[in-house]
Amino acid sequence: MTTLGDADAAALLAAARSGDRSALARLLSKVERGGDDARSVSEVTHAIAGAATTIGITGAPGAGKSTLTSALVREMRASEASVGVLAIDPSSPFTGGAILGDRVRMDEHALDDDVFIRSMATRGHLGGLSVAVPDAARVLDAVGMQWVVIETVGVGQVEVEIAGEADTTVVVVNPGWGDTVQANKAGLMEIADIFVVNKADRAGVEETVADIERMLSLRTASPWRPPVIQTVATEGRGTSELWSALQRHRDWSVESGEFERRRALRLDQELRRVVNSLMTAKIEDLAAGDAWRTARNDVASREVDPWTAAHRLLG
Amino acid sequence: MTTLGDADAAALLAAARSGDRSALARLLSKVERGGDDARSVSEVTHAIAGAATTIGITGAPGAGKSTLTSALVREMRASEASVGVLAIDPSSPFTGGAILGDRVRMDEHALDDDVFIRSMATRGHLGGLSVAVPDAARVLDAVGMQWVVIETVGVGQVEVEIAGEADTTVVVVNPGWGDTVQANKAGLMEIADIFVVNKADRAGVEETVADIERMLSLRTASPWRPPVIQTVATEGRGTSELWSALQRHRDWSVESGEFERRRALRLDQELRRVVNSLMTAKIEDLAAGDAWRTARNDVASREVDPWTAAHRLLG
Repeated sequence: MTTLGDADAAALLAAARSGDRSALARLLSKVERGGDDARSVSEVTHAIAGAATTIGITGAPGAGKSTLTSALVREMRASEASVGVLAIDPSSPFTGGAILGDRVRMDEHALDDDVFIRSMATRGHLGGLSVAVPDAARVLDAVGMQWVVIETVGVGQVEVEIAGEADTTVVVVNPGWGDTVQANKAGLMEIADIFVVNKADRAGVEETVADIERMLSLRTASPWRPPVIQTVATEGRGTSELWSALQRHRDWSVESGEFERRRALRLDQELRRVVNSLMTAKIEDLAAGDAWRTARNDVASREVDPWTAAHRLLG
Repeated sequence: MTTLGDADAAALLAAARSGDRSALARLLSKVERGGDDARSVSEVTHAIAGAATTIGITGAPGAGKSTLTSALVREMRASEASVGVLAIDPSSPFTGGAILGDRVRMDEHALDDDVFIRSMATRGHLGGLSVAVPDAARVLDAVGMQWVVIETVGVGQVEVEIAGEADTTVVVVNPGWGDTVQANKAGLMEIADIFVVNKADRAGVEETVADIERMLSLRTASPWRPPVIQTVATEGRGTSELWSALQRHRDWSVESGEFERRRALRLDQELRRVVNSLMTAKIEDLAAGDAWRTARNDVASREVDPWTAAHRLLG
């Protein structure tokens, strides 16, 4: 008897779609491993995915993204929407970096079949992450989650990119945000469909909202003006407004064609990354082979130059 | 009549080797342009290069690298050694970013046939730079420069890598360095063969030297202990000690085999980068072609998944 652990991706997907959570977890593990494992999952999930709406949530460490995500999941469940969460933030409670209080807060969803929360470790390989996250989101989509929330800490270029490659992107800041995210402000402005000023019970909230509104009015005219929502996620304040704004943005973008336009763009970017990662794997293979040693020796003895050697290696 | 501007790389190299400085400048321009131009230069220079010793000089902006380089060139010329300088630092006077005083300081070498100074612009394409710099260093080597100095500002990973890929690497800091290069300390420790504490007439020099010595003593045992040299480059103080240390390190590394070991390693890395840059160019070609459009449409219609489409694209 084979266990599901050895099962192929199609069998795991069928099991996951009928509610087997460990099958779902195994699909995501295959995606994280990359290579042929990830490819086999992508083959079966891509064919049936596409119905879920993906939300990127990003912001500086400590902005309260995880608490906000948990509160948002609560709103979604109150509307009977199913939701999968991918937490990329290395400081997130989901990835084990935080205090017990936060962990308990997410644990309220642990026994709910229509919520699935998964942390994805960066493992120091960010290039790999930007390939793995769309694959993982597609798994949650394919098993029938209506919403997929991707939470990343908005400090690095790759994390901001990942969050920006969603149907809707939420940027979370705090009162006094100017001090903490100075360097990334322009990048965050670029990707935000919705701004959340979390911890809005703190001093300086009016100035921060005004600052964001001022910067938004400097953007090139767009038919969608990102709302700026004040929340106190720890108390659930403002999170129903966020949930409404998310649905409003989804409806607007579907109607306006922005939804399809972005998905086509994302697909192009994903294809480029996958091609790039296959090529990188090919270079690693090449570098481990006899032809590489020959090429290197020829260059060392100055018989051929590096460019000629590289052309020969690539056939 | 064809001008040398249209001449092929072999003709330019022959002219440059007989002292034609504009031919040398044109060779370096070809390298900067990349692609077939760079390849043609690499073909002719690689065959005859290898005699020059390359020195990487790196450190934080404002550490005085350019002034130190100029003072070092003066020492080298006093010993009748020929030297080529590649300045990668975007804030360097060679690249036009600095005050007149610095520029004049380097201009003292402008009429000396055995000194050639070239700035290389980063143009925002750092991946390209790490391929272009070894090619450019090889040009200076092939025209007969005995020493090639590569000056980079040690703020980014790529710049530190470039400086670290020399026969000898000099890390320049200032008194109180702990405050300015905190994040990069470990990386700089890793690559330094020689430490220079420039602006050593300032307060805190003893503490900085002690700090470096303490960190050096924590490194894994190595037969070469990096000397820590105090300089005041603006007054030429300590620069003859630096010049001596450079020659001492060169002699030690040749005798110990470290010289050859590093060059073999660098060659491997260079080959990898060249292969990578050829592959990146191939991806760009692919992305502009009909096959890419077909693949993207097939993925969009969910007939194939991104991995399968990528495999097909790569044949």
